[in-house]
Amino acid sequence: MGSLSLVVLFCSSCISEATLDRSIVTLALTLLTSSQAILIVWSKRAGKYEYSVTTANFSVEALKCAFSLVALARIWKSQGVTEDNKLSTSFDEVSVYPIPAILYLIKNLLQYYIFAYVDAPAYQILKNLNIISTGVLYRIILKKKLSEIQWAAFILLCAGCTTAQLNPSSDHVLQTPLQGWVMAIVMALLSGFAGVYTEAIIKKRPSRNINVQNFWLYIFGMVFNLIAICIQDYDEVMNKGFFHGYSFITVCMIFNHALSGIAVSMVMKYANNIVKVYSTSVAMLLTAVVSVFLFGFHLSLAFFLGSTVVSISIYLHSIGKPQAQK
Amino acid sequence: MGSLSLVVLFCSSCISEATLDRSIVTLALTLLTSSQAILIVWSKRAGKYEYSVTTANFSVEALKCAFSLVALARIWKSQGVTEDNKLSTSFDEVSVYPIPAILYLIKNLLQYYIFAYVDAPAYQILKNLNIISTGVLYRIILKKKLSEIQWAAFILLCAGCTTAQLNPSSDHVLQTPLQGWVMAIVMALLSGFAGVYTEAIIKKRPSRNINVQNFWLYIFGMVFNLIAICIQDYDEVMNKGFFHGYSFITVCMIFNHALSGIAVSMVMKYANNIVKVYSTSVAMLLTAVVSVFLFGFHLSLAFFLGSTVVSISIYLHSIGKPQAQK
Repeated sequence: MGSLSLVVLFCSSCISEATLDRSIVTLALTLLTSSQAILIVWSKRAGKYEYSVTTANFSVEALKCAFSLVALARIWKSQGVTEDNKLSTSFDEVSVYPIPAILYLIKNLLQYYIFAYVDAPAYQILKNLNIISTGVLYRIILKKKLSEIQWAAFILLCAGCTTAQLNPSSDHVLQTPLQGWVMAIVMALLSGFAGVYTEAIIKKRPSRNINVQNFWLYIFGMVFNLIAICIQDYDEVMNKGFFHGYSFITVCMIFNHALSGIAVSMVMKYANNIVKVYSTSVAMLLTAVVSVFLFGFHLSLAFFLGSTVVSISIYLHSIGKPQAQK
Repeated sequence: MGSLSLVVLFCSSCISEATLDRSIVTLALTLLTSSQAILIVWSKRAGKYEYSVTTANFSVEALKCAFSLVALARIWKSQGVTEDNKLSTSFDEVSVYPIPAILYLIKNLLQYYIFAYVDAPAYQILKNLNIISTGVLYRIILKKKLSEIQWAAFILLCAGCTTAQLNPSSDHVLQTPLQGWVMAIVMALLSGFAGVYTEAIIKKRPSRNINVQNFWLYIFGMVFNLIAICIQDYDEVMNKGFFHGYSFITVCMIFNHALSGIAVSMVMKYANNIVKVYSTSVAMLLTAVVSVFLFGFHLSLAFFLGSTVVSISIYLHSIGKPQAQK
């Protein structure tokens, strides 16, 4: 599955933008996100991770930068350097690019503190608040209208995803203290804001080559992940080395994250954050189904009910387009 | 709560049909169904039931008959006996009346056998198949169209109700053997068919007084419940007496069932089976909330998620009216 999606995405990132299909990037994102979750399960089964998460995040950003440059080099070779695909940029264009990277940095730092208030399964449940925050911020910041039916569909998506993830210990989440709720909501808003803001940046210059836009986004990603390394893992990296504890599976995960990251950018360019949320939600369900075959997991009744609700949400979203967009 | 709804319904069954509001009967049905479930919990807490269920069912039918006659007597007094409110009937009119009673009898008998294949919590979950079967049979038998959004809403209602009832042992239902599934589906079809057929009977003669229609429905209900007593509890009734083991709470439950039964008929006359299904689903949620205050029950995360899905289902049903009906 991982290699299939690698092929799909690599093809789509090399060919010219015009032929890039919205459906292909969405499919690629779905498959990459699924295989990502499966790699995480696989790596957990193989033993605890020994590598530092911050260096892995930095490597992901560096790899995405490299992918963008490779894609650009091919485009320059075939089309020549134009105003739209040149790498150099103005302060006006690039000044907003650090904002998503800063937001993600703050969110990742908060992630370490929220576990003082909520346990890991409850955190998984609370992460579904991202769906709602993305919808609300998409409406407010990008000023794009969702119809009443699409709003209903979006609340259903959140309820369906949460239902699909229910397990006997899920009720712990109801004992979350106020601080936990506040942090979860702040994290959801940060993550939603970062996503929506990235879309705003990418869409502001529609004719600009996505690989140039990605390159600059990822450069700032590298910078802010370097800051995160200094804050969290400076001693460990200094004593044990940058790539300490990396295994074959770690490298696979880094490649997968890099490709998913590019797929997310492509979805932002050719579709939108709503499509991204649906895509990652379907990936979550797909992962569970694939895990049944790969790891002998059992699907719960809650999973079937949640999947039903998510499926109907997708259907309602598609038929509920606002009149003007039809 | 029980007494409040008693008042609501008693008023509505005594006043003239023309002023009977669709909303009042729906509200009455919701409140009666909720208080019914609460009475059951209360009676279980007070100890196991000692009375025979078949004689209680017969008493319910007899009481409904009595209520219909009282309501008719008042109408005859105020309006005189007319073609529409006279009690005597033709074979043509009455010939179809036994059918719902026969269907319910078969369903109730099946209920004793299904427990060989599924346990009680799984049966509670499987009962939600009634929602789907009612929708399908409503479409086929009454030839009433639901819009695509209303179908989506109906599937959501089923998923939402099931989600709200999830508990740690719900996954048992996935181990239900084929025979259990077949019986559950047959029971859902019987129950859905009985409901839809009753609506067809009542709506066939719109000007006919509902109390006359009820009277004949309940007469056949009495007859077929008498058959059920003979099949299941003949010896017990003969040895211990008909009303053996009845307590104050048993009498309350019989009154409540009788009034709910009348409310169902009213909903069939002035609204339809879809409204009935929504009404009883909301009653289920209401019961859970009231039980928190009355019995100190805890609401689960699944309950909140299920309630959200049911609420959105109600919203979608209301905005999704087919174009022609608007």
